[in-house]
Amino acid sequence: MAEPVNKTAHAFDKTRFEALLNRRFFYAPAFEIYGGVAGLYDYGPAGSSLQANIISEWRKHFIIEDYMLELDTTVMTPASVFETSGHVARFADWMVKDTKTGDVLRADHLVKGVLEARLAGDQEARGVAAQPKDDEKDKKKKKKAAKTVAAVLPDETVKEYESILAQLDNYSGPELGELCRKHNLRNPDTDNEVSEPQEFNLMFASSIGPTGQHPGYLRPETAQGHFLNFSRLLDYNNGRIPFASAQIGRSFRNEISPRAGLLRVREFTMAEIEHFVDPEDKNHEKFAEARNVELTLLDKYTQVSGSSKVTKMTVGEAVDNGIIANQTLGYFIARISQFLLKIGINPERLRFRQHMANEMAHYATDCWDAEIHNSTGWTECVGCADRAAYDLSVHSARTGHPLVVRQALKEPIITEREVAEFNKKLLGKTFKQDAGVLQKAVESMDEAELIRLKGELSQGKATIKASEDKSFEITPELLTIERKTFKQSIREYTPNVIEPSFGLGRILYTLLEHSFWAREQDEERGVLSLPPLVAPTKVLIVPLSAREEFDPLVKEVSSKLRRAGVFSRVDDSNTSIGKRYARNDELGTPYGVTIDFASVQNRTMTLRERDTMSQRIGTIDDVIATVTELVFGTVDWAEACRRLPAYDGVQAVD
Amino acid sequence: MAEPVNKTAHAFDKTRFEALLNRRFFYAPAFEIYGGVAGLYDYGPAGSSLQANIISEWRKHFIIEDYMLELDTTVMTPASVFETSGHVARFADWMVKDTKTGDVLRADHLVKGVLEARLAGDQEARGVAAQPKDDEKDKKKKKKAAKTVAAVLPDETVKEYESILAQLDNYSGPELGELCRKHNLRNPDTDNEVSEPQEFNLMFASSIGPTGQHPGYLRPETAQGHFLNFSRLLDYNNGRIPFASAQIGRSFRNEISPRAGLLRVREFTMAEIEHFVDPEDKNHEKFAEARNVELTLLDKYTQVSGSSKVTKMTVGEAVDNGIIANQTLGYFIARISQFLLKIGINPERLRFRQHMANEMAHYATDCWDAEIHNSTGWTECVGCADRAAYDLSVHSARTGHPLVVRQALKEPIITEREVAEFNKKLLGKTFKQDAGVLQKAVESMDEAELIRLKGELSQGKATIKASEDKSFEITPELLTIERKTFKQSIREYTPNVIEPSFGLGRILYTLLEHSFWAREQDEERGVLSLPPLVAPTKVLIVPLSAREEFDPLVKEVSSKLRRAGVFSRVDDSNTSIGKRYARNDELGTPYGVTIDFASVQNRTMTLRERDTMSQRIGTIDDVIATVTELVFGTVDWAEACRRLPAYDGVQAVD
Repeated sequence: MAEPVNKTAHAFDKTRFEALLNRRFFYAPAFEIYGGVAGLYDYGPAGSSLQANIISEWRKHFIIEDYMLELDTTVMTPASVFETSGHVARFADWMVKDTKTGDVLRADHLVKGVLEARLAGDQEARGVAAQPKDDEKDKKKKKKAAKTVAAVLPDETVKEYESILAQLDNYSGPELGELCRKHNLRNPDTDNEVSEPQEFNLMFASSIGPTGQHPGYLRPETAQGHFLNFSRLLDYNNGRIPFASAQIGRSFRNEISPRAGLLRVREFTMAEIEHFVDPEDKNHEKFAEARNVELTLLDKYTQVSGSSKVTKMTVGEAVDNGIIANQTLGYFIARISQFLLKIGINPERLRFRQHMANEMAHYATDCWDAEIHNSTGWTECVGCADRAAYDLSVHSARTGHPLVVRQALKEPIITEREVAEFNKKLLGKTFKQDAGVLQKAVESMDEAELIRLKGELSQGKATIKASEDKSFEITPELLTIERKTFKQSIREYTPNVIEPSFGLGRILYTLLEHSFWAREQDEERGVLSLPPLVAPTKVLIVPLSAREEFDPLVKEVSSKLRRAGVFSRVDDSNTSIGKRYARNDELGTPYGVTIDFASVQNRTMTLRERDTMSQRIGTIDDVIATVTELVFGTVDWAEACRRLPAYDGVQAVD
Repeated sequence: MAEPVNKTAHAFDKTRFEALLNRRFFYAPAFEIYGGVAGLYDYGPAGSSLQANIISEWRKHFIIEDYMLELDTTVMTPASVFETSGHVARFADWMVKDTKTGDVLRADHLVKGVLEARLAGDQEARGVAAQPKDDEKDKKKKKKAAKTVAAVLPDETVKEYESILAQLDNYSGPELGELCRKHNLRNPDTDNEVSEPQEFNLMFASSIGPTGQHPGYLRPETAQGHFLNFSRLLDYNNGRIPFASAQIGRSFRNEISPRAGLLRVREFTMAEIEHFVDPEDKNHEKFAEARNVELTLLDKYTQVSGSSKVTKMTVGEAVDNGIIANQTLGYFIARISQFLLKIGINPERLRFRQHMANEMAHYATDCWDAEIHNSTGWTECVGCADRAAYDLSVHSARTGHPLVVRQALKEPIITEREVAEFNKKLLGKTFKQDAGVLQKAVESMDEAELIRLKGELSQGKATIKASEDKSFEITPELLTIERKTFKQSIREYTPNVIEPSFGLGRILYTLLEHSFWAREQDEERGVLSLPPLVAPTKVLIVPLSAREEFDPLVKEVSSKLRRAGVFSRVDDSNTSIGKRYARNDELGTPYGVTIDFASVQNRTMTLRERDTMSQRIGTIDDVIATVTELVFGTVDWAEACRRLPAYDGVQAVD
């Protein structure tokens, strides 16, 4: 059996981790040989495969499982669309400039950074032992960055700073400017004063066509492409609701000062779902299947009370108790959780945080972020919001194109009401140019007034007061009022939208952090324990050397694995087997097979498992069969060990 | 057995075809409810699935089969990169403006359109029967568009026009302007004169970061992302060459007047391969496997001779006879052909056209386009070029970062040469500030001069003329010259690049055209005969009605199909089975299964084939097993008919 592996023998070492990602080309700064551009990264072969595998699983888990309608809409978007959606006016951050260097900083980040640094300096001066919390670690780092000396602050200042930080998302730009002046907040890198905050729209602008007359933006999210195609999607779905559209694609945000690697970038791949639902029925057909999924929740009441204590409960309980607003939102939160765990996110480092009232868009009714913990703290990686009818309503109002569902009612709604009908010919003859005024006066009457008028008319004549100084006398020949029956067989409504929105780069990065550890014996030997489902390469084929005699077997094994649907790579480079395995531990390759002289003579092959480094041996075909099942998850390593005896040969050791 | 199907009973009807694509939401103009934007299209569920399936097969056929290194690089690119690559200076078209309306036209398109229309008018006036060639059809259309009347042209004018058209790609902007003036070429839509041609760069411009100081462009191709990462890729491949990188991603071209649907758009998905190879050895390891692939070729000599007659030959013959420049280029052309045929392109409508000398970029050594015939004529869908060392050389020169391969030589190269060495101390003491001048003079000497100097020194002293008015006398103590042996064990070179570049939208569109036909009995019943490999949905599940009693079977069948890896959809809409099948014939769904009362009672199910509409019957599990094999191509319909008896029931007829 496999020996137990201690993956936490060494604390997470970000420097080593980043060196590994760089060395194995998971990703790298784009245009590196040109000096690079902040916030733009290229994915290399390992990162691209990992991303492709995550996307492939996303497609299966969401699109195929729930018969979603996939879309692929354009990035380039005419300005009018984002004027309507509110992005031109509001998709902005406040920035300040260093008054001497012209360096640009995000105003809220500046306030947060400097105040946190001062608080940390205060704590240090007061001799308070830093608690082993990430928040504290962050403060330390920021303090260092801001070069603040340890200095005790008056108690009321500490209180004021803490209060500012707690409501940071609430300040307007001018208020942030006021804070900078009042508290003398300066650029921590230069200690220079900063300018008044200016609004900076985060959309990249361009113009479409040769005349330069059509302003356009690169989309900052894929969502608008779904909303604009709503009528076509509804039609594709045979007019039925609920249904969901889904899209995986590139989006762009011109971040003011991107600094946190893949966590805040200017160009990124998103996967978004827009689930269209009847506002009067947000139950979900498959909620029963998700009911028992356990979630870690941080609800808005807890946060408002100043705590960040999470609660564990099933999604069923959360919806039953009104913590999550409705079944559909609950269903998606459960499915998001299942997806993240399936690809390898550590369940202990995943929580769902509810937006507080002041944090949510004004139209949203409930919103939860899947936050994943990593070396920078908790990071929002998936948003899941009930956006009500906002998006469809604004586009419909702007374009005049109805974005509604017309639903045949099972039971038509029967209503009765009084209907007034003029004898138009007689009306014109009698009242000439006043006819219109009179007609309008009657049309504006409510049910009660019509009944009163009907009564009067039944007496032979009636008086209608059209305005302060105009009254008309009419007779039953001019106007008849009758009670009529109406049958409504169609209900028309604007659907609501539940939107799960995934930032794939953030998920990929946090997954890499969660997968990283170093061998107990040697801190320099990093390993990425990616699950076979998403690992870039599933099986490494390692011939003892690049000698020709191994070629036929290498070709046989790789072609058999390919036929079984298992992606393998050959490493016949001129270095020891141990080094080749170590390189592939860094790439997250879960299994390796070694072809040596015994393979040529006896048709046997060894199978190595990445985390335990334990090796088994069997015939080539047995090993291929077992490793195929391991990759597809139908057997585990313990079962593989029962099938294949341990290998204790001298070759192919690490 | 299935009856034969006559797919050519009706001529291709573009109006019906486009109506079908629109109705079934393969794609639609983006921002349609805002009035649309020329050259931007959204893919709906059917188009997105088709595209995803084409990409998935592309990944298997190219990336996985040949162990290519996948990349995912950014769209947003700093201007300096495209200055180096030549795109800022040269990635442009010439445009003219209508002098009254300001409408913009591509200058070469204007010349082509008007001259072709005049030639067509001439032919008509001369009473020449239009030949049933597509080119003629095109001319007719253009004539109509240009509202040219039938009028006989002088013979020499006809000759002149034809000569202009034959070398259209050769004219500069000013020359195109000259043509417009000389031949009075006007905007065919308005009959107004046009302005002088101006150059218009096709890249979308934007700026990166909040200060607006960093100009950027959206990439018009993915290639630069490969070249800039060359060193990292080489390292990932353990320093070995040849290898290929591959990338699937969005690119942008701000076309002057996009008009041809998906064939000329402003935003599109490309798939590009950059195969890096030793310039001294462009053989390909797997060429033997491709040698017998038959190709339809239109080489440059044939074109230059004024003909467009294609030749069929194997890729082996083409390379052996020097028609295709080298094995690697030949290998990729063969693989491209195999890929296009596999996804359903009609082999009769595929040819490879070689670029003529004046058509190719100056650095390219050979270039072939896979052209696919469609209702607009022959369209370039894949380019396959040998770009030599151009790209890596220019980026390397600009950045100073070496983009080279350093290869250990099996046999070191031994060379001998004369080496001059100064006694530096003595040199400084003797010549003071002139020491440097003297040193430079010696360093700039060639072998012959050094031997001459060595000879002089062996006589005791020598004179060195450093410039017109400066000579120095030196002794052997100051300078020794010796013959030394050098051993070069590393060869350093810039690899060449073979680049297959796929426009996926063009391939998708031509595939749809090739797949479209209408039932012989009823021209309105369109069918898309997409191969199961790429069809958006593989199996349609059709319950007789939406009644609850069919639900368990519908769920069973769809879950069993999903487990078998077969993507199905249920259509339980409230319309006849025939109409539901007709709708799915339009979506290209190859198979359908019907669940009716017999299914509930006897657990049988019928299986329908799209093209023949023939129906078979069997137990639910037998039908699932057979349809799974049909979808994966391990059995054909004839074999399915042997396994499952014909169905002649009254239900589920079309």
